[in-house]
Amino acid sequence: MRGAWLDPAGRIRFRDDLPEPLPQPGESLVEVVLAGVCATDLALQAGYMAFEGIPGHEFVGRALTGPMKGRRVVGEINAGCGACPACLGEAGLDARHCAQRSVLGIMGRHGAFAERLSLPHGNLFEVPDRVRDEQAVFVEPLAAALQILDQVQPLPGTRVLVAGDGRLGLLIAKALHAAGCQVDLAGHHPERTPQGVGERTGLLDQAHRPESDERYELAVEATGNPDVLERLFPWVRPRGTLVLKTTAAKKASLDLSPLVIDEIQLLGSRCGRFETALEALAGERIEVDSLIDQSFPLAEVARAMQVAAQPGVLKILIHCQSR
Amino acid sequence: MRGAWLDPAGRIRFRDDLPEPLPQPGESLVEVVLAGVCATDLALQAGYMAFEGIPGHEFVGRALTGPMKGRRVVGEINAGCGACPACLGEAGLDARHCAQRSVLGIMGRHGAFAERLSLPHGNLFEVPDRVRDEQAVFVEPLAAALQILDQVQPLPGTRVLVAGDGRLGLLIAKALHAAGCQVDLAGHHPERTPQGVGERTGLLDQAHRPESDERYELAVEATGNPDVLERLFPWVRPRGTLVLKTTAAKKASLDLSPLVIDEIQLLGSRCGRFETALEALAGERIEVDSLIDQSFPLAEVARAMQVAAQPGVLKILIHCQSR
Repeated sequence: MRGAWLDPAGRIRFRDDLPEPLPQPGESLVEVVLAGVCATDLALQAGYMAFEGIPGHEFVGRALTGPMKGRRVVGEINAGCGACPACLGEAGLDARHCAQRSVLGIMGRHGAFAERLSLPHGNLFEVPDRVRDEQAVFVEPLAAALQILDQVQPLPGTRVLVAGDGRLGLLIAKALHAAGCQVDLAGHHPERTPQGVGERTGLLDQAHRPESDERYELAVEATGNPDVLERLFPWVRPRGTLVLKTTAAKKASLDLSPLVIDEIQLLGSRCGRFETALEALAGERIEVDSLIDQSFPLAEVARAMQVAAQPGVLKILIHCQSR
Repeated sequence: MRGAWLDPAGRIRFRDDLPEPLPQPGESLVEVVLAGVCATDLALQAGYMAFEGIPGHEFVGRALTGPMKGRRVVGEINAGCGACPACLGEAGLDARHCAQRSVLGIMGRHGAFAERLSLPHGNLFEVPDRVRDEQAVFVEPLAAALQILDQVQPLPGTRVLVAGDGRLGLLIAKALHAAGCQVDLAGHHPERTPQGVGERTGLLDQAHRPESDERYELAVEATGNPDVLERLFPWVRPRGTLVLKTTAAKKASLDLSPLVIDEIQLLGSRCGRFETALEALAGERIEVDSLIDQSFPLAEVARAMQVAAQPGVLKILIHCQSR
């Protein structure tokens, strides 16, 4: 079949000779309609997770086999073993934290930048009719943004700083804004400010030592640059929470003393629940169309990745079927 | 008066010409009987907090003035402004997180390695008769250890990894063990294993990738070396908690991706409540005598600091009155 291939040197190439997915027992075959490019895909090129194969984990498609056959679906990207304590729901965990899991297009499982993929039946979620493909392709990153609300539950009116105005940062700002938080958004691309992301702030650009009453109860690091984290510490109030979303292939050089002195909670945050994201889109609580930048046919996937890597570019979509 | 002086080059010298403390309105003068050397004192020598003056913050003494005059006292080291939201108890804070605070022997206030010091009246706590001076001098570091239980509240039987078997690591292991946790203690000095610290483990010395069921619900980093933190990530279970106690003058080089992937909570932890520590000592719930290594007269404070900096040395005490 046709699709993208990431080799160990970090090169992405379009190929028309990729093997068809072989769904394992309990898995469905899915025809990919539309896929999205994420910062994690770019990190994979830089060596993150040492992944080789078909990348891509944001998609909407149509189930070709299995219980959802014929339905329009999105797919939870973590495929657990189904038998371990995490998969069985112990200690508040689920398959997202199965130690044996594969992750679509990231770890141990070919991904969505191709004509077809396979996932366990239970990973597929039907997309309601009123959610268009161009919205549904945001379910995975929107779920990751909404995961913060599962972990932290800020009260309405809470002052929140979101650092990073890229693809994920804007979705996080929208999710927190929709939850009633008072969002300040810091980033390098004020020319790209969609509706519903809160207020722009230049505070991280300034050499300014925050006063006590300027510090935030909650801050989110979603810049994609691990070196930014340290600059956020002074902006979080004592015993406040700093959510970390950035994963990267490179190490950060950090003085963690402020985290100890101010007893800050640094909370790692990854994948969210698809149900919640589908509901938010179906209920029109979060608008995503304004985040779409450009779309490319599958044959131009290498170019799509190049464009996605340029500063200030928002969501790049890939049409995975010939039209 | 007689005491220690830390100069900006990190040199500690004994001097007999130090100015007497000048208690401000609302402050008591305290005669220091016994002081303890802490890793933070050694970090100050390496440039942490850019402190110049009389170091030392662990002490037991006798109030010479104020409401506690004549009583045997220990002293909370954070002196707040008394008027800000933190000092007024808003948002679950207290003077420990006052932005204008001074901290005894660490920031903006001369410390305990001297014949006398001053602190606000309200910072002093009377020491019950049944707690000897050699125990009471541990109130400050024991409060810091017990602070973890204020922040995390592990259920009895929780498996906990304590990394670091120095002065603070051992106190933390004792505090968690006394709270009913199943403590594994990792460090480089198995020859110094007091009672009541749980089980020794060599797991951090091994190149071993932990199985799911070997990972800990709770881990504590108390080694004093900021580079150790990264090695603890694989030992914390998904959505588990890693408490960070180490403050140091040097930066750490860290890959924080595992914290994001496993959604670990990294929780900074600093000073604790003196009441809790005094109760634990008075109730004989935590034994500290076995942690005392050597004691020195005040005139030998420079030597005391040198000895405290040697690997494997436990608590060094300083007798601050001529005997």
